[in-house]
Amino acid sequence: MSKKENEKVTPEEVVEEMATEEKTEEVIQEETTERSELEMANERAEEFENKYLRAHAEMQNIQRRANEERQNLQKYRSQDLGKAILPSLDNLERALAVEGLTDDVKKGLEMTQESLIAALKAEGIEEIPADGEFDHNLHMAIQTMPADEDHPADSIAQVFQKGYKLHERILRPAMVVVYN
Amino acid sequence: MSKKENEKVTPEEVVEEMATEEKTEEVIQEETTERSELEMANERAEEFENKYLRAHAEMQNIQRRANEERQNLQKYRSQDLGKAILPSLDNLERALAVEGLTDDVKKGLEMTQESLIAALKAEGIEEIPADGEFDHNLHMAIQTMPADEDHPADSIAQVFQKGYKLHERILRPAMVVVYN
Repeated sequence: MSKKENEKVTPEEVVEEMATEEKTEEVIQEETTERSELEMANERAEEFENKYLRAHAEMQNIQRRANEERQNLQKYRSQDLGKAILPSLDNLERALAVEGLTDDVKKGLEMTQESLIAALKAEGIEEIPADGEFDHNLHMAIQTMPADEDHPADSIAQVFQKGYKLHERILRPAMVVVYN
Repeated sequence: MSKKENEKVTPEEVVEEMATEEKTEEVIQEETTERSELEMANERAEEFENKYLRAHAEMQNIQRRANEERQNLQKYRSQDLGKAILPSLDNLERALAVEGLTDDVKKGLEMTQESLIAALKAEGIEEIPADGEFDHNLHMAIQTMPADEDHPADSIAQVFQKGYKLHERILRPAMVVVYN
């Protein structure tokens, strides 16, 4: 197979190629009493050759698909656990916003928050930026504010809840207030 | 193939079976001028039949292995992220142990802790029990205390740091003090 690995090899292509060669061989065969037996043997050979080529092509396709699937499973393996951790991050942020925390508690919360964020990042999960223009693919507008000279329409006024993505997949959009 | 799906089909088995049938056919063949051409055709048919059977068996093996691998990847997909989250759980526990927390902060920390534990459990990650006999497969003894009538040798006196497992895999052993 001279094709590139990621190109799909269809059994039909391979079988077609071989069928052409087969016919040329048959033509130069002489008529004999053994003709039909020879013909049958040739047909059988051709049949198994085609079956073999089909199986071989299918095998390559199965292997290619299995590799793709494995890569995908690895890439997105932390989607469920990552998503389930986000509410904990929200809770930590809320706890950190409480007035009058002792330094000990504050430090403990910050360490917890940082190690969670680092663990998520190692798996490809990151906060969605939400400090510029509103993008309906990344942000969800839950409220609007009137735009003015300093705040153009479609710019983000405030983030209510942070959004997160796993590589290019949105785990949840950022909940924002938008000027309009 | 009448074999069970999870049994490995070796190409050799299949090919051996077919080779026996092949020989019987060849014996009843008459000597003719076409003999060698017929022989060649039969040999070719046999060759491709064997190649086909081998490819077919290999295909089944590839598919079986890919399925097993996929199941394994799914089962242990949260191993890395889960392991990386454990220090956050430790930090939360330490923060909760601090004296004089306000109810608000305490509630926030407990919610965070509970939701993390629930997220881990959904992926098969659970705390390792460490309240009975010491088991070197699950626990790591970091200190000993003298055993007495109420505390038999090899029983766990105290847990320093909780251990966790993912299904049957140990993510980290429980660090314990043991009576001896």
